[in-house]
Amino acid sequence: MEAIQYGLGPVGSQIARLGLRRGLRYVGAVDTDPAKVGRDMGEVIGLDEKLGVAVTADPAELLAKTGKATVIHATGSSLRAVLPQLIDLLKAGCSIVSTCEELSYPYKTHPEEAAVLDETARKHGGRVLGTGVNPGFVMDILPLCLSTAVQELSALRVERVVDAAKRRLPLQKKVGAGLSPEEFRAGVGEGWIRHVGLPESVHMIAAGLGWPLDRVEETIEPVISRERLTSGHVPVEPGMVAGIHQVARGFVNGSGERITLDLTMAVDAPGADRVIIDGVPPLTLEVRGGVHGDLGTASVVINAVHGLNKLEPGLHTMLDLMRTHFGPLSRI
Amino acid sequence: MEAIQYGLGPVGSQIARLGLRRGLRYVGAVDTDPAKVGRDMGEVIGLDEKLGVAVTADPAELLAKTGKATVIHATGSSLRAVLPQLIDLLKAGCSIVSTCEELSYPYKTHPEEAAVLDETARKHGGRVLGTGVNPGFVMDILPLCLSTAVQELSALRVERVVDAAKRRLPLQKKVGAGLSPEEFRAGVGEGWIRHVGLPESVHMIAAGLGWPLDRVEETIEPVISRERLTSGHVPVEPGMVAGIHQVARGFVNGSGERITLDLTMAVDAPGADRVIIDGVPPLTLEVRGGVHGDLGTASVVINAVHGLNKLEPGLHTMLDLMRTHFGPLSRI
Repeated sequence: MEAIQYGLGPVGSQIARLGLRRGLRYVGAVDTDPAKVGRDMGEVIGLDEKLGVAVTADPAELLAKTGKATVIHATGSSLRAVLPQLIDLLKAGCSIVSTCEELSYPYKTHPEEAAVLDETARKHGGRVLGTGVNPGFVMDILPLCLSTAVQELSALRVERVVDAAKRRLPLQKKVGAGLSPEEFRAGVGEGWIRHVGLPESVHMIAAGLGWPLDRVEETIEPVISRERLTSGHVPVEPGMVAGIHQVARGFVNGSGERITLDLTMAVDAPGADRVIIDGVPPLTLEVRGGVHGDLGTASVVINAVHGLNKLEPGLHTMLDLMRTHFGPLSRI
Repeated sequence: MEAIQYGLGPVGSQIARLGLRRGLRYVGAVDTDPAKVGRDMGEVIGLDEKLGVAVTADPAELLAKTGKATVIHATGSSLRAVLPQLIDLLKAGCSIVSTCEELSYPYKTHPEEAAVLDETARKHGGRVLGTGVNPGFVMDILPLCLSTAVQELSALRVERVVDAAKRRLPLQKKVGAGLSPEEFRAGVGEGWIRHVGLPESVHMIAAGLGWPLDRVEETIEPVISRERLTSGHVPVEPGMVAGIHQVARGFVNGSGERITLDLTMAVDAPGADRVIIDGVPPLTLEVRGGVHGDLGTASVVINAVHGLNKLEPGLHTMLDLMRTHFGPLSRI
């Protein structure tokens, strides 16, 4: 399959290396970084060999040459920011798998952007899907899959703990590692300390289960370290912030909180993923040590390509690839 | 949705009770047992109330009245045995979810039956799917779902341990509980001691991962008890059989055994489900205490209805409802 890598930062480069190993034939690469434009994609993503594909800052020019392709898109978390990029790709008939967290389930949080994407994709025969390890797998698709095995479902809780020391530097910055509690709160207020995507996962789960949500609430608190932590990129002193504890809750009219996504990303936190279904029967699933964030995101993105290409043109979410879950019979 | 329950044994009755709770509107019930025919379905499945639906032994007569419906089918494990029932339902345009284990992935083990089912379903606008907790979920769909999170996959192993004491009597008989080792081996030889469906799960996993299988091997051994076990329906003396240890292995040309499904069903065995992926990264998933077989099968069957009805007419498997998994890019 002919593919284009759009975005060659650390995540995009890792996905591209995996895509190559797994059989994608790259015919183009897009990045706006002047230090990358014009160079061979193989060099830029850290391979020892050239691929014969020059990085370009001009996707329109590239698409005029290649025609429609499968695009692996990894440029940002904000759907509003990446929307023009996605629209141009869809107008060329491309099928896009994107790491954009807000694209993972945009119908509730970004309904206008979702409508434009769906309409453009259908019109030009393209497809677009946002995914990754979280949102996109551990805190939405995996619990939905497990829900297949329950007769009744009262509440669904997912706990994910990520050891930020094992992640790349931008992740450690995003969770506030090394900051004072005051700096952390300021960062939360300014919006740059936050994991993006928990509300999208709550909405995806609710849609799958057929639960109409009243509201989704999200809280962000610092994880304060009691000791000096030196395993991350920056040292964390006692009393300072080791990371983030972020919780999103979905409330169903008349029955209160029924979806809880509890995420901790902190230096030296012991990695773990746990899905707890309060149902008949009750079920608890654990992934030992948790799914690694960076490795997992590249996996989920590349593994979504074969499924997406079997779907009709349009905007899709991982829910379109995961149709086995506890679900409402009354609406059929 | 209008539904028909076809088969009112212990499993069929449990599924029907769940279907009613979850919103299925039953318009018919089929069973050939003279002790059930003519009685009200509510009574037969153990409810305190009548449903106004009389059990019939004549599905043709029923379908002539109801027209096409969603059929929950639970009459047997052998695809060859239930094929005429399924064909008649499909000719009436029905969509069928069946507990028939050999139907869960019949393309390799019953290719002719699979072709006839698919052709008949397409011709008349019906659908047919075989599922349950195993085959259908724990040892195929759940591991495939987990495989979404790996970059590379060398081998996949599933271990399931079921406490047969917590299951119904037919299950305890099927696993040989209480027999002597000689009686067990005779039962294996005669074919009535065996869990049906492991090879189907191996083929489903292989199809999802894109692995061409050389062959599938299956072994059946007794689990011998060291002590007297009294928690089941029949007592198990020391030296006698507590249950079954059945393993199915899928071999890929040139790279040996890559899929291993290891199933133990024995009295007092501690329930557990474990998926072990040898890959990048390696992943181990556990469901605490395992998914209960009888409760789980009813769940999976009822939860498959909404997904099946969104698919095109034809023969389907759970793989059509679970399109997010490690998969081959080269074939796209």
